[in-house]
Amino acid sequence: MNTLKGACIIGQSGGPTSVINASAYGVIRTALDNPNITAVYGAEHGIKGVLNDRLFDMSQEDPAELELMKFTPSSALGSCRYKIKDPDVDDTDYKRILEVFKKHDVRYFFYNGGNDSMDTCNKISKYMQKVGYDCRVMGVPKTIDNDLFGTDHCPGYASAAKYIATSCMEVYQDARVYDTGMICIVEIMGRHAGWLTAAAALATEFGAGPDLIYVPEVDFDMDKFLADVERIYKEKGNCMVAVSEGIHYADGSFVSEAKTSATDGFGHAQLGGLAAMLANVVKEKVGAKVRGIELSLLQRCGAHLASKTDIEESFMAGKAAVENAVNGITDKMVAFERCDENGHYVCKTKLMNLTDVANTEKKLPVEWINEEHNGIKREFVEYALPLIQGEPERPLQSSLPRFVNLKKVIAK
Amino acid sequence: MNTLKGACIIGQSGGPTSVINASAYGVIRTALDNPNITAVYGAEHGIKGVLNDRLFDMSQEDPAELELMKFTPSSALGSCRYKIKDPDVDDTDYKRILEVFKKHDVRYFFYNGGNDSMDTCNKISKYMQKVGYDCRVMGVPKTIDNDLFGTDHCPGYASAAKYIATSCMEVYQDARVYDTGMICIVEIMGRHAGWLTAAAALATEFGAGPDLIYVPEVDFDMDKFLADVERIYKEKGNCMVAVSEGIHYADGSFVSEAKTSATDGFGHAQLGGLAAMLANVVKEKVGAKVRGIELSLLQRCGAHLASKTDIEESFMAGKAAVENAVNGITDKMVAFERCDENGHYVCKTKLMNLTDVANTEKKLPVEWINEEHNGIKREFVEYALPLIQGEPERPLQSSLPRFVNLKKVIAK
Repeated sequence: MNTLKGACIIGQSGGPTSVINASAYGVIRTALDNPNITAVYGAEHGIKGVLNDRLFDMSQEDPAELELMKFTPSSALGSCRYKIKDPDVDDTDYKRILEVFKKHDVRYFFYNGGNDSMDTCNKISKYMQKVGYDCRVMGVPKTIDNDLFGTDHCPGYASAAKYIATSCMEVYQDARVYDTGMICIVEIMGRHAGWLTAAAALATEFGAGPDLIYVPEVDFDMDKFLADVERIYKEKGNCMVAVSEGIHYADGSFVSEAKTSATDGFGHAQLGGLAAMLANVVKEKVGAKVRGIELSLLQRCGAHLASKTDIEESFMAGKAAVENAVNGITDKMVAFERCDENGHYVCKTKLMNLTDVANTEKKLPVEWINEEHNGIKREFVEYALPLIQGEPERPLQSSLPRFVNLKKVIAK
Repeated sequence: MNTLKGACIIGQSGGPTSVINASAYGVIRTALDNPNITAVYGAEHGIKGVLNDRLFDMSQEDPAELELMKFTPSSALGSCRYKIKDPDVDDTDYKRILEVFKKHDVRYFFYNGGNDSMDTCNKISKYMQKVGYDCRVMGVPKTIDNDLFGTDHCPGYASAAKYIATSCMEVYQDARVYDTGMICIVEIMGRHAGWLTAAAALATEFGAGPDLIYVPEVDFDMDKFLADVERIYKEKGNCMVAVSEGIHYADGSFVSEAKTSATDGFGHAQLGGLAAMLANVVKEKVGAKVRGIELSLLQRCGAHLASKTDIEESFMAGKAAVENAVNGITDKMVAFERCDENGHYVCKTKLMNLTDVANTEKKLPVEWINEEHNGIKREFVEYALPLIQGEPERPLQSSLPRFVNLKKVIAK
């Protein structure tokens, strides 16, 4: 084994999730316990914390407090949306990163994020190889969007999916309480991929979910949508709809951004989101009581409904990144492989080349969308159900969440 | 004791809550077990179910299934918003109610609802007295708005408050994850009373809640609001705001309904709600990234975050209604009295005259609102904290909620 001694950095990047901190904790805990890793630094706001030499010394944190990261949503170290330049165009950032790495003797770099973050991670990895600086670089996946290439699923997805399914089941009860009917439109995140919106089908599976589901993998047709809603509403007296924020017309334009069209007929800026807009269109067309609900940030930070499986797998991804790196692996992202052991779901880690992962999107399989393009097939339910299992014993204070409070001691 | 034998009806009315079914279950379970009550009927859609003679025979339900009502949000029997006429103007409905009562030998009538429902309950009670039909009529309170007169708090409020506080704590984590600032505006229910919005102060109490809270008990001033937000944002780099849907200007007009004004400057209909509108105003004025989040129906059906205390008290209210009625009491609403036993919160039931309760609103005490009218004082936190305590062991199926499935067998 190729032993490499030195410090490590863990950074978090992109939109947070309910369990991204569980992955970071997997890295930090495993690294703190490893004799080859001489110091564990948390970068403040991802790669920006490296550029600004703002690194938290994680060994200064109380171990019991640190463990609360497993139950704390959002990025405890701070995140960023910083797009690093192509090093052939401008290598200023890379030189600075190398400088900070050398200053702190950083030999391990772990980057916790989605597509864009894996691109950053990949560029840094390749740069360090090019300049001959011995540093093992590993991507630790996270995204509620579930759209990372090469992994069965992504840490963070299942907890958001569980939040969405549970909330849909509850809204379903509420939205049909009167003898006068109602149409309810729930807007779910997912600009390009329908994985999150498809999670509403888990509610439908248990008899309390949307009648209609629209995802961005197929084109949206407003007239067909209105006919679908009107038909269900007339049949049942109620109608519940789930839509991805990213649904688009055949010409590629987002429905949410449509300012004027023959069908929706608005000539002014939309203040609310897609749900509010669709609710208005449906109200005009069907004449029913309509309510639009946007799950907004709630779906990605609703840690109180986190999947225990997701928390454990997220931790495992961070742990595997450190263990593999210490064992000589570099330039990879930890990914998940789904195994069937005697009919039981088991998740194992595997490794993907960062080059293959960076900037590649994995969409919801079109075969899992029904022929009418307004619903999700059972194959998806079978895929998603194992991921959302288990309730964590989340720490509480006065019956409210007890989140981590880090000291964030800056490394000298 | 004045023994009265006969059937009972339980009806649910008005906007549902996470625990209104726990109260209905308190009535149903207690009534099924009482020898003086010969039959237990659930009215389909409240008083409309009586008018239509659509009564479910609750003895036909499986007892274990029935108990799931404690954990099922929304009105399991169906609700209504039917406004019963003044009997001196038009007594058609009352005659019909009496007819159905006589048909099924109904001697006990329990009505589970808020202000308007207590008005219905009161009118029916007085009518039965007037025509000399021996029927004991009891109101069972529920409302997330917490605005019923004469009770320390209302069943349903605490669970919504807990949902709001928890969600604010989670959003707080998410909304400050980047090094670029953000302003986040959370819209909370409450057309006339600020109790629900004040619950956001519970999040602030634990260091992760709104910087600013606006309730409808005091007039809203857009310029002052914008100055408040801008000041906090400049000081902290982030700002989180909670607003009641019912905030209004000094002239009484709702901020949410303002079409044009010097300050908000819109000349067209609002599609989104108040949060979207305020987000736009703040964006224009402060120039920051702003996100509006409307908790919408989620806050009143989020049973997965129900307060165990609230569930138990809601059940207790239903139980007390039956026990008191069987003991000869009529024309009352069950209310809550807060007692201090050796420094511990204890909740006991008491009885209020329906006449006194009907249509009277209890607002958030103005003394609990800070002098700047942009925050909530600690007195409120001390009031609300005991109410949200405890996590119920909610039944799950595949880690998703298992709600009640009633057979709903119509009484012949």
